[in-house]
Amino acid sequence: MRALWLEDRKLSLREIDVPTPPPGEVLVRVLAAGVCNTDIELTRGYYPFAGVPGHEFVGEVVGEGGGRRVVGEINAVCHRCAACLSGRRTHCEQRTVLGIINRNGAFAEYLTLPEENLHTVPDEVPTEEAVFAEPLAAALEIQEQVRVTADDRVLVVGHGKLGRLIAQTLALTGCQLTVVSGAAGVSPPAKSFDIAVECSGNPAGFATARAALRPRGTLVMKSTYAGDLTVNASSLVVDEITLVGSRCGPMAPALALLAQRKIDVRAMLHATYTLDDAVAAFEHAQRPGTLKVIVTPRSA
Amino acid sequence: MRALWLEDRKLSLREIDVPTPPPGEVLVRVLAAGVCNTDIELTRGYYPFAGVPGHEFVGEVVGEGGGRRVVGEINAVCHRCAACLSGRRTHCEQRTVLGIINRNGAFAEYLTLPEENLHTVPDEVPTEEAVFAEPLAAALEIQEQVRVTADDRVLVVGHGKLGRLIAQTLALTGCQLTVVSGAAGVSPPAKSFDIAVECSGNPAGFATARAALRPRGTLVMKSTYAGDLTVNASSLVVDEITLVGSRCGPMAPALALLAQRKIDVRAMLHATYTLDDAVAAFEHAQRPGTLKVIVTPRSA
Repeated sequence: MRALWLEDRKLSLREIDVPTPPPGEVLVRVLAAGVCNTDIELTRGYYPFAGVPGHEFVGEVVGEGGGRRVVGEINAVCHRCAACLSGRRTHCEQRTVLGIINRNGAFAEYLTLPEENLHTVPDEVPTEEAVFAEPLAAALEIQEQVRVTADDRVLVVGHGKLGRLIAQTLALTGCQLTVVSGAAGVSPPAKSFDIAVECSGNPAGFATARAALRPRGTLVMKSTYAGDLTVNASSLVVDEITLVGSRCGPMAPALALLAQRKIDVRAMLHATYTLDDAVAAFEHAQRPGTLKVIVTPRSA
Repeated sequence: MRALWLEDRKLSLREIDVPTPPPGEVLVRVLAAGVCNTDIELTRGYYPFAGVPGHEFVGEVVGEGGGRRVVGEINAVCHRCAACLSGRRTHCEQRTVLGIINRNGAFAEYLTLPEENLHTVPDEVPTEEAVFAEPLAAALEIQEQVRVTADDRVLVVGHGKLGRLIAQTLALTGCQLTVVSGAAGVSPPAKSFDIAVECSGNPAGFATARAALRPRGTLVMKSTYAGDLTVNASSLVVDEITLVGSRCGPMAPALALLAQRKIDVRAMLHATYTLDDAVAAFEHAQRPGTLKVIVTPRSA
């Protein structure tokens, strides 16, 4: 099958074998896959992954129970480690992660995932919208971790793909929402927000979010990127700030929100490429102002 | 009156006027004052304070209602700013802080504080033990912010003055408690603790606490020190770690614990100096292995 291959930070198209699902896993024919900032960070060395990238996908189950459209949770877990036994499955110590850690991903004609990871896409959600289920679930993770109410003044720093999904999920709470970019020099009112979400993928965005928080405020960190962050530890202590790292979230509510048309993802879909042009899709995704770029194995 | 004076990072004894309490404040004759790591950090430039340092004290109210022994909350607040009106009084935007921000402190014969800041010391608590009320309250702040149960595996990094008080307050929850020093190279089991408290005053202690936390664990930051901290932001996101800055806490429960003899502070009292020798007291407090050093205006 055709697949996009990442190795030594370089992308290329390759011909590789169609994967054979191990016990408990199923073969999925990929219908569409989205380019995420994490994919782009992988090409910059955020994590030393070699293989097929891609973790936002819609596919069709092949074989038994075949034909239904699915999206999938990206963490494949062991069920035996301390994290799994404690109910923190996305933190499984032995996990493989689709297109990120030790598991080939979705920029290919086929992928495999454990059956338990799959969620059926409701008929009313078109494939190109269901591609957003995984990042939308990541946006919803914030509210799994931090209570957000209509009384809260909430700042979202970053108005890219993830930032817009986060802003839309937060808006559903009725909170007082402000969205700014993560560019250096952006300065929302200081010490004025109860909650700030940093999803700019940019250390300057962290500084913006931090400065905007009132004492005892909560800063949610959603960006993964290579490199360290320098923080003034004493100011976090003196202002009793809470920082919360936030990653993958629940897929089922994400699909439900898409089915109910409560989240607008259409306007975020900026380009569709075929798998043959996947390298160009990555280039497009990195152009300033570009939101979601998706890749389909064959032209629609 | 005699007072210890800090200016340009240098300590000296001075003769200054006995303060006149403004409306709402009372004059307190200091009986004893403890040297805290924050005081030592002030002499290293942690915060540009000039004046009388010292914020851990026991005193005797002078004048109306006089004679009773008191300890005091160190934040004097405005009651009018957003933080005060939201019930976050220790974060008052206009606050002065005893011996730390725009308010002379306790290494002197007298100090003033708002009447509302004072708590009467129970008769059964000796003065040299009541000096620990303020840092003990700071230790208790952790449990105001983070729920700690008997099921939790808790690591305290730092076994100095504050670390020992924190360990004792946490032990009262019945949690599974481990205490290590914050020195570089100390390595408790990785990813094994639900909660870690960094109170070593040392960036290496932060790294130790971070490495010991399981995914979705909570790192409580209690140390204030000059300088920045470098953190791997992505690892906080991937492991969904929560960081919580923690500062001043509730004095009344601290006094109650001392009265009930549930916290042993006696063993932590390493030396007592008179105010004339306060500079030597600061030197002693910085010797390795030294726990609490207290200063009394006159020899007992």
